[in-house]
Amino acid sequence: MIYVVGLGPGGEDQLTPRALAALGRCDVIVGYKTYIDLIAPRFKGRKELVVSPMKGEVRRCEDALRRSREGCTVGVVSSGDPGVYGMAGIMLEVAAGHEEVIVVPGVTAACAAAAVLGAPLTHDFAVVSLSDLLTPWELIARRLEAAAAGDFVICLYNPMSHGRPDNLRLACETLLKTKSPDTAAGWVRSAGRDGEEAHLTTLGELAGEKLDMFCTAIVGSSATKVVGGRLVTPRGYQRP
Amino acid sequence: MIYVVGLGPGGEDQLTPRALAALGRCDVIVGYKTYIDLIAPRFKGRKELVVSPMKGEVRRCEDALRRSREGCTVGVVSSGDPGVYGMAGIMLEVAAGHEEVIVVPGVTAACAAAAVLGAPLTHDFAVVSLSDLLTPWELIARRLEAAAAGDFVICLYNPMSHGRPDNLRLACETLLKTKSPDTAAGWVRSAGRDGEEAHLTTLGELAGEKLDMFCTAIVGSSATKVVGGRLVTPRGYQRP
Repeated sequence: MIYVVGLGPGGEDQLTPRALAALGRCDVIVGYKTYIDLIAPRFKGRKELVVSPMKGEVRRCEDALRRSREGCTVGVVSSGDPGVYGMAGIMLEVAAGHEEVIVVPGVTAACAAAAVLGAPLTHDFAVVSLSDLLTPWELIARRLEAAAAGDFVICLYNPMSHGRPDNLRLACETLLKTKSPDTAAGWVRSAGRDGEEAHLTTLGELAGEKLDMFCTAIVGSSATKVVGGRLVTPRGYQRP
Repeated sequence: MIYVVGLGPGGEDQLTPRALAALGRCDVIVGYKTYIDLIAPRFKGRKELVVSPMKGEVRRCEDALRRSREGCTVGVVSSGDPGVYGMAGIMLEVAAGHEEVIVVPGVTAACAAAAVLGAPLTHDFAVVSLSDLLTPWELIARRLEAAAAGDFVICLYNPMSHGRPDNLRLACETLLKTKSPDTAAGWVRSAGRDGEEAHLTTLGELAGEKLDMFCTAIVGSSATKVVGGRLVTPRGYQRP
């Protein structure tokens, strides 16, 4: 039996009781060092905690499958929701129906970041990762263009990292083909964790901001606005 | 002080400790009957619980603001995440910066439904509500067309209700202009609650299924597939 468990934004106060109970049933828990560190205070000495390297996702899932077949209950952890750019997909592919896999959802970064900024996702939105490690940039650009054409609120995961210093600028340039530079936007570092920071900005200014891999950025639709210092996309209950 | 609190999919085991703590600090908690019923077993007799009708959203927020100004700590509850088609946006609009509003995120229906189906949201996705109560159908159709053009996985909130029996069919017809009828899809009733049901289908068959307002539907991208009975969108870790 394998549980793929979402830890939420990071703080223990956003880990659901269902996720905690699933981890409690595990004999072995595997994940990136950052995520294992998050749960270690609670489980160290009581569970076998296995740190697995970034880019070792397939191997991690194969190890989880092997341990499960040996009779262990295995937990595979992701931050946020494990189904959003997390481990759920690859774990299900590796298990291929030969072993039971239960996905335990969590609060994803889009929702955690939105809550800090206000309520930018209260109408239709699109989620796009700017990481081109596993996705050709052409597909990312096509999706950004489509999301802009549909006037979606756009939530950007993995907006910038050392290995991809230009992707946020390229993404903003792509969106600016259709959207106004005055479009309300915001970004959050470490949403729901220690060191949380929220910044309001505009699409025109976003490319110049100093984001990193702990950030999530949100670019509004044409209806998104700043109300009392918070980023809000009206659903339409009130037309002020 | 006003907390807008996400209850998650419904079961108490998916309410985060942060959400529970926020509710614990409230003197008054307001919401639709369904949501108040969810928390009543824990808070009845200890909090003032105020049931507010559907379509009374602006009034509910005005009442919350008034009670907060009178010195109460007020909770406004939504199921799932309060920032996704929930009460966070309108509450921030009504408060307009004159009263502190804290949004406490929750597990949104997209993530809860995806977890039940497998991992359909593991790559870029768009979230579209098919409710045309507050949004013109033309904008909904434009967003569906854009999401299809971008080959997003598409998560449909409010896919069907008594008042909108044709919207799911219309949405499927719109998506079928671009997408194959064989596109893998799925839908879930009461994700994360008692009576949970998961169904795999295809885009071509989806319009004929019997969904209701407790359902969330997910239509895959061109990469989404069924693996071992689960709906999976590969992120690209493994190219089988």
